[in-house]
Amino acid sequence: MQDHLPEPEPLSALVDALRRLPGVGVRSARRMAYHLLQHDRKGAQQLSFALSHAVNHLRHCKRCHSFSQDEICETCLNPKRDDSLLCVVETPADQNMIEASHGYRGLYFVLMGSLKPLEGVGPDDLGFDKLLERVSDGKVQEVILATNFTAEGETTAHYLAEMLKSRGLRVSRIARGIPTGSELEYVDAGTIAWAFIERRSS
Amino acid sequence: MQDHLPEPEPLSALVDALRRLPGVGVRSARRMAYHLLQHDRKGAQQLSFALSHAVNHLRHCKRCHSFSQDEICETCLNPKRDDSLLCVVETPADQNMIEASHGYRGLYFVLMGSLKPLEGVGPDDLGFDKLLERVSDGKVQEVILATNFTAEGETTAHYLAEMLKSRGLRVSRIARGIPTGSELEYVDAGTIAWAFIERRSS
Ligand SMILES: [Zn+2]
Ligand SMILES: [Zn+2]
Repeated sequence: MQDHLPEPEPLSALVDALRRLPGVGVRSARRMAYHLLQHDRKGAQQLSFALSHAVNHLRHCKRCHSFSQDEICETCLNPKRDDSLLCVVETPADQNMIEASHGYRGLYFVLMGSLKPLEGVGPDDLGFDKLLERVSDGKVQEVILATNFTAEGETTAHYLAEMLKSRGLRVSRIARGIPTGSELEYVDAGTIAWAFIERRSS
Repeated sequence: MQDHLPEPEPLSALVDALRRLPGVGVRSARRMAYHLLQHDRKGAQQLSFALSHAVNHLRHCKRCHSFSQDEICETCLNPKRDDSLLCVVETPADQNMIEASHGYRGLYFVLMGSLKPLEGVGPDDLGFDKLLERVSDGKVQEVILATNFTAEGETTAHYLAEMLKSRGLRVSRIARGIPTGSELEYVDAGTIAWAFIERRSS
């Protein structure tokens, strides 16, 4: 394509920038750019502002490592939360889901990922040192591991359990089992097997 | 969720803005936001700038209706192009593909879409009036319809052919057939059928 393509520079630059989004190839970047320029210029401006606003105003909370506008986030500063419990999650989205369940009133530590040895994501990248510092505040009694039940989440939980128990901390893992409201007939076999292994006396 | 979610405002605002992109739901918007904030803040700033730059500097070329930085785009102003030929395409991406094929040296008109009666996209939305004005410049001899060979592209081509022929213009449609380099065994039956219908004497 040595020929001069008719595409103006601001359009190519936008397509290139959209391609940096995870899961967006050149075709969808182009579709997004056309859509914004043709049908939603207000949305383009809104996104432009939201990006620079987020980059300029979000940092990591010094205590829980989640995104925060302030040095310490609102959740960590909330005096109504039980500071003897610390729940470790992979992402802020997981934290939101737990908050929405209304089943937990303790504090959080957000790893911002999980151990991925094959992709070179190790303990240092997930702030395990900060977690150790966090749990040494003299208040945390129990660390609840709420990483995903994926291979990577399980590896992370296992690693953290060993690390924290060796420091004399009480460590627990959220339960795996049959989802509420589901019929056994439609639950996968692996989940049923785990529900038997983790059965509790009633 | 009457509870205060721990998510800070700049993060929710970014997720909301990303959801305006076509094909992006709340989960992928969240994944994109975390990725940008955690791993690619430079990419976020680049995208923010590219969006506002494109919105502020791109408009529609007055002659071909494609995106342009100037009132009339470079392609339309290029004196080396054959101004007796006008090729009608759906999108700037289609125009790029035709340019890359080096098989065409005429001018273009970009519809920025196709007729979609069910979604309420009619002739007015695609600038058919501007196209009629464009072909009345006394130079255009032939209009080549290069809309997609989809139901919508075909409908658009049919509509345009009727409209332009009634104005006494020569109208043609790009050929449909077996793709270059492909083996019949792997070509779908519909394409083969069309290749027979549109066969030419040799
Ligand atoms: Zn915090
Ligand atoms: Zn033009």
